[in-house]
Formats: sequence, C-alpha cells, structure tokens
Amino acid sequence: MAYFDAASALPLHPVAQQALLAAVEDGWADPARPHREGRRARLLLDAARETAADAVGCRPDELVFTSSGTAAAHRGVAGALAGRARAGRRLLVSAVEHSAVLHAAEAHRAAGGEVAEIPVTRTGRVPAEAVTAALGTGPGPAALVCVQSANHEVGTEQPVAEIAAACRAAGVPLLVDAAQSLPWGRVPGDWSLLAASAHKWGGPGGVGLLAVRKGTRFAPPAPVDERESGRVPGFENIPGIVAAAASLRAFRAAAQAEAARLRALVELVRRRVPELVPDVEVVGDPERRLPHLVTFSCLYVDGETLLHALDRAGFSVSSGSSCTSSTLTPSHVLRAMGVLSEGNVRVSLPPGTSRESVARFLDVLPGVVAEVRAQLTGPVATPAEAPAEAAAEVAEAGVAEAGVAELVIDARGKRCPIPVIELARAIGGVPVGGTVTVLADDVAARLDIPAWCDMRGQEYLGEEREFAYRVRRLD
Amino acid sequence: MAYFDAASALPLHPVAQQALLAAVEDGWADPARPHREGRRARLLLDAARETAADAVGCRPDELVFTSSGTAAAHRGVAGALAGRARAGRRLLVSAVEHSAVLHAAEAHRAAGGEVAEIPVTRTGRVPAEAVTAALGTGPGPAALVCVQSANHEVGTEQPVAEIAAACRAAGVPLLVDAAQSLPWGRVPGDWSLLAASAHKWGGPGGVGLLAVRKGTRFAPPAPVDERESGRVPGFENIPGIVAAAASLRAFRAAAQAEAARLRALVELVRRRVPELVPDVEVVGDPERRLPHLVTFSCLYVDGETLLHALDRAGFSVSSGSSCTSSTLTPSHVLRAMGVLSEGNVRVSLPPGTSRESVARFLDVLPGVVAEVRAQLTGPVATPAEAPAEAAAEVAEAGVAEAGVAELVIDARGKRCPIPVIELARAIGGVPVGGTVTVLADDVAARLDIPAWCDMRGQEYLGEEREFAYRVRRLD
Repeated sequence: MAYFDAASALPLHPVAQQALLAAVEDGWADPARPHREGRRARLLLDAARETAADAVGCRPDELVFTSSGTAAAHRGVAGALAGRARAGRRLLVSAVEHSAVLHAAEAHRAAGGEVAEIPVTRTGRVPAEAVTAALGTGPGPAALVCVQSANHEVGTEQPVAEIAAACRAAGVPLLVDAAQSLPWGRVPGDWSLLAASAHKWGGPGGVGLLAVRKGTRFAPPAPVDERESGRVPGFENIPGIVAAAASLRAFRAAAQAEAARLRALVELVRRRVPELVPDVEVVGDPERRLPHLVTFSCLYVDGETLLHALDRAGFSVSSGSSCTSSTLTPSHVLRAMGVLSEGNVRVSLPPGTSRESVARFLDVLPGVVAEVRAQLTGPVATPAEAPAEAAAEVAEAGVAEAGVAELVIDARGKRCPIPVIELARAIGGVPVGGTVTVLADDVAARLDIPAWCDMRGQEYLGEEREFAYRVRRLD
Repeated sequence: MAYFDAASALPLHPVAQQALLAAVEDGWADPARPHREGRRARLLLDAARETAADAVGCRPDELVFTSSGTAAAHRGVAGALAGRARAGRRLLVSAVEHSAVLHAAEAHRAAGGEVAEIPVTRTGRVPAEAVTAALGTGPGPAALVCVQSANHEVGTEQPVAEIAAACRAAGVPLLVDAAQSLPWGRVPGDWSLLAASAHKWGGPGGVGLLAVRKGTRFAPPAPVDERESGRVPGFENIPGIVAAAASLRAFRAAAQAEAARLRALVELVRRRVPELVPDVEVVGDPERRLPHLVTFSCLYVDGETLLHALDRAGFSVSSGSSCTSSTLTPSHVLRAMGVLSEGNVRVSLPPGTSRESVARFLDVLPGVVAEVRAQLTGPVATPAEAPAEAAAEVAEAGVAEAGVAELVIDARGKRCPIPVIELARAIGGVPVGGTVTVLADDVAARLDIPAWCDMRGQEYLGEEREFAYRVRRLD
C-alpha cells in the first residue's frame, strides 16, 4: 500500500497529533473570555499565530486563521476586491488557479464583476510578462491579481517574486494561493495576500490561513464579528490551529532535506514512466516545480478506470481535476496548458516516501495501464502500434468512407478516450497525406485529439466545425 | 476552581477525545477522493452525519457541517433569504437572538434588505403571538423568521413549536438557532432550518451544523463547491466532525438525568443569591428555561470588575453580551427584556458540576460583590441603605441644587454603574415626592436607572431629554 496523494492531504504529522491533544486539554475555552480558561485558550491561539506568521514571513497581526484553504482563498479574494472597489471590478486570475480561487472569481462575475484569465505556457507557467500584459489591457487598473505559488495538478512553480514586482509596479495587489508550496518554504516576493491550507503540511483538516500585508486594502465579506481581527467570524478551532502551526514548523524543519530526496524520486518517475509505458506524456515544468509532485497522461486510457486499477494495486493517486472525484471532465489546468488530459495521473509523494515504494509503483504501472487499455481496445497492445489491424477494423469502428484518402469516424455519444482510440485505429486506414475527421461530442476530445497528434507525429488540422476534428496522417 | 461558563464552551467530552484520535488516524484524507484513504474518510463523515441527524431529528441529507455555529447561522440566514428572494426581503428576528444571527441580519440590511425585530417579554420570552403579529405587519409576506430555541444569556426557552406552527400557517420558513438547547434534546416543532455549535455539547471548536429541511428553499451564498451538498465549501474537518457527532450522542445519553440534577442546583442559585446579596435581580423565565443556566444582575457593581474578582476567587463565569470580552456595553438581550444590566453575571453549569462547588460559589459571592461595591462606593455597604450619609454626600457627588424637592446630578462622562450609585446616594437628599434628575451619557443608564427604580420602589418618570433621567422618590 502506498499513498501518493500528498498534494490532496497528508496524514496528521506526529507533532500535530501531540499539539492537538495538548490544545484540546488547554485550548477548548472561548479565547474572547476574560476568565482563566479563556486566557489560556487565547495564549495558545496567539502563540500559534506567531508560529504561523514566522513560517509565512509576515507579522502576526497580518495573519488570520480560517476554516480551510478554500475559505482563505474565498475570503481573501472577496475582501481584497471589496477593499479595492474604488479601483474598479476587474479581477485577473491565472488560467491554472485552484478551483477555490476560480469559484471566488465566478462569484465575483455573478455579482457583476469582470474576470479575465491570464494564459499559461505549455508547462503550466504563468510568465510575469503575461501578467504585465493582462494588467495593461482593460479600461482602468485591475482590482486584484490572483496567481498561485505552484500548481496543484502539475507542480509547476510560478515566478511569484517577478509577478509581485509587476503588480506592485502597476499598483495592484497580488493574492497568492500558496496551498501547495507553503509547506516547502516561504513564498518569495512582495505579495499582498496569501492563502494556505493546513492539511497540505500534515496539519488537521478544518484550518486555513490568510495573510493580508499591512497597507493592503481589505474589507472582509459580511457578516463578521470581533474574532480574528474582524476578518473571520465564529468560534476559533484552537486545537486545530495549534496543531496546524506546530506541524508547519515541524514540516519546515525537515523540508530542505526531504525536498532533495523526493525530488530525486520524482525525477525517477519522470524519466522512467515514458520508458516503461508507451504513449505517455509527462506534463508540467521539468525544472521549476514542486519537489514531490509529478503528473503524466496516458493515451487510450480512461482516467477513472486507471485510478481504480491503481487503487486495487495498492497505490492511491489522483487524477484530472484535483477537487472532485465525481467530475472527471478534463481538468481546466491541463486544458489551459493544451496538453493531453486522458489517462491523467498525479503522483504526489508524502514526506518519508521510500525509494522502494516508488520502484514498486514503476514495476506495477505498466501492467496496470496495459490492462486498462486492453479493456477499452481489446487484446492489441496499443492501437496505433497495429496499423494493419486498425485498417481492418475501420468498418467496425463506425467509419463512414468519404473517398480513398478521407475517413470520417462517428464517435458521437462515446466518452473519451474512445474517440481517440478510434482515431488511432483508423489512421492506418488512410494513406500518408490522407485525413481522418473524428466526430466526437465529449469535450475532452478538443484537448486530447490535438495532444494525440502531437504525441504520435500526425498533423492536427483543426476543429472543422463544432465537434468535428480533422487530422492528416504524416507518419 | 470552578468553571461555570458552560454556555460559552465545554471542555472536550471524553468520548469526543477518543473519537478525535480515532478519526485523526482514519479520517485525514480527502473524502472526495476515490482511493481507499478517501473512502475511509467518507465513511467516517457519512456516519457522523447520520449520528448528528438523528440527534437533530432530520434526515442525513438535510444536514451539513459548518466551521462553527456562527457560520451555520450566517449561511442559514443568507441561504434561506436568497432562496426566498421572490417572497421579498423582510427578515424577522427576535430581539434576543445571538449576535451571529443579528450580524447576519445586519449584513442583510446593509445589502438593502429589511429587518424587523420581534419584541420579547420581561422574562426574555418570544410569545408566538408576537411572531404572528410581526408576520402580519409589513407590505408582503416575510422572507424568513429567526427565533432561537433558548436564550444564551438568560436561559429562557422559546415556544418553538408554537412559533413554527405560526410560521407554517403564514408560509414563512423558521430558522432556529439551537446552539444552547440542542445538547439537551431535539428542538420540537416543524421548523425549517436549524443551526447549532459543537463546543456547546463538548465537541471541539471548529464544528457547527446546519439542517435545512426538505421543501425549504435554500440558495447558499456563493462561492461554494461540491462539498457538503454544495452548501458549505472547503475541505471538511472530519476529525472534528466525528468528535462532534460522538459527543452529541454521548451528551444526549446522559442529558435527562443531568438536566434534573443541574436544574436543582440552578434553582438553589436562583433562590439563594437574592437572599445572600442585597440589590440583586435574577433575570430570565423562572420555569421555562435551560436546566444549567442562571443569570442575575447586581446593582452598584461594574460587571467587568465583578468578573475579574470572581475569576480571582476561582470561579469562571460570564457577563453581559455573551460574545465578547472587550465590549461590556449593556447586552442587547437584557436591554430587550428591559431588565437591569449592571453587575450582570451568567452562571452556566457544565455537566458533572458538584453541589459543593455551587455551595462554595454561594459562600464566596456575597463577599466578592461587597468588595467590588466598596471599591466603587467607599466603605458604605450599599448606598441606598445609608440615606443619611447620602444626603451629606450629595454635594460631593456633583449635585446641582434646583430647589428643595428637585436635585440634578451631573454624572456625564462617568461609566455605569457610577450614575446609578450617585442616584442611590442622592435620593435620600430629597423628600418623598421630590425628584432627582440624573444626567448620564453612558447608554447603560437608559436601562439601569429604570431598573433601579423598579428594584428600589422609586418612580421612574422617564428620559426628560436625551441622557437626562428623572426619578421621583416614593420611599
């Protein structure tokens, strides 16, 4: 059994467990009360705030605790926008933000605000120049920019310091969703707001943090009360907060050494997976990335089935959109990057992951992928490796012949990866230079057919009309 | 040492502690993930929801967990109002609701909504007739009614079943803040929404619950995500939720016997305090009240000083507004009831409180009150008991003579209870039938001077002009 979904949540750090038990004893009372039990709770809360602020690199009075990283992002975005209402209502978000930030942006749009997306490179990077360009468009100054410190799905680190400098130059606050990177180190640069989540560093669920640097205009969404500097209402989760702060400090103490060790394991996965499994694309920036996270996509595989097969084989990984198991629609992150989404697997290693368990994963993966592919494609290894058979199967696959060098495959009503599998089977049925048009109404095809062309050396001619994708055989 | 502030928070129930530890082991993963760790977390969350729903008396799919009782009230009010937007924007709240509900009402008003208060009796009761009357006023139907199940400051239980029936008859949903009563039993009647808070029953901080009965229109405030039926966004605090559900069940198992035991102790306090301490008013309904809570107010005492003195004597109690230590302004609850607010003490007994510790409190209280009174009034026991001296001190106390039978005391700039103390000293200086006018700009005087008249058998003539209170000596 190996849990490789650290980017989603970590087990409680042993230090957090001790802190939780101690704080349950001493920190259960209302810290707003003047009696001894209240004062004791207040002391614990204050100490936790100092510890967390030190880890973030801000002043204790700039930091408040929220009930989750999501709540921190929601309150941060809403509060910063309300504080900047006089500067207008234009919000800029990178195209690869976590859904928490995107949901806050949607709420802003629904309330009449404007939201613009900052595009990313094929490795998922948000170049500072793209931020500068986005800041320069639009009628007035932007109200707020949101860029994560590192991507939660592909691990790409963002140039936050450069982006923060660009925002300062434009006089626009920058909110950094630091959920993935804060355990590993402070977020560099002169950002204005920062959100993070304790269960990413071995703290308990139910604790997030929001830092708002002095000088940043901030008007928290109503209603609020006197708690957390009037920024987060409701009785504080002090045991959780104390455990979160203690585990952040403990995680950080080991972070540098552990990062180096995990980076080597991730490097191994990045190198070996494409050697061991045919038709795989490793995604995300190869250098500027989180130490513990690697993501790859496998052609001709259904992500959900692959996850379940890996789970049965003893490996807990994640896939596609990082926030839900119910919607395995193509991740907005992979879509924004323009890379393959099908058969997407995110491996994120918890601290302490052994080389042996990674080696075991690499042993098991090829067979699991082959097994899942076989379920979808039949006994052939991978469809594109069997062009002779594919030609023979063209008719079965629902091909409508429209001329010698022109095939149309009707894959409407079929879910990805079936349209791509049928394309791969059919391409051998046209001569080099001929074309195949795939009719497919699963929106993932829009991403996966171009990605397939790229990986297989074929030419993607474009979406001829809606849901009709044209491919020229080059090879 | 005795902790008598159960209505604020309870220490973690031993059952909750065990559940917390177990759930920390098994419930740390993301319940939205399909892998084994995620499924294990989901099972714990589902089981906790069933337990809590059973205690509330609703279906599991009607109940969501929030990050606090405050968050439950905030989301409940906002979501119910948004769901009823077509019925208008008029919100009815009882005048004695917890600040969480009042803050939500303020936010509604700030956003252009209408808020009307339902008045209470002198015992803090919200009569069903008052709700019916409030429902009948206004241009259209109300959008929502909020009435607590029992008051957090004075313990008065509300006739929720009757109120719910009145609301159903009018076709208006009722939200019940059940924070104080849910540990003791289900809230009766056909309410539509219910909010509660785990640290009131020995669950951990950081967990609230919100029930929305089927058929109740509800549109949760944006942003949300897929968690908690799309009603509460963000990674769930599963260990906290599991501990909260377990402790609610455990609390309930002992609630009936413990309520009877605590009710007897509270009865003792209600009876003995006015016998032991002069010039005390016990407030709240004498019969229809929470089993563990009693509140009284002491003339000629500053509430904050009294709290600190009791704390030094080993008793942790609460005072005035139940939500903050920083604002000891007169509680809106006491104000709505029209009772004395000065020297207010709330005693709320945790389960297991011994008769000995209550007896000790009754031993200590008279001396503590006398000591605090002496600090403010000098060596006299209570000012009104020394009319001869008071007459002599009239000049010192800042009295401007305006005729034989007419005194004016200038207590402007002095904080309560000083204006009342000066009134008590001065009243002996006018003959029976004469009047004293107190100039006092501390707003608490508006409540405390009439209450003093009531307690001392003098006649309150009214607020002659702003901050000028006229009293006729009868006795």
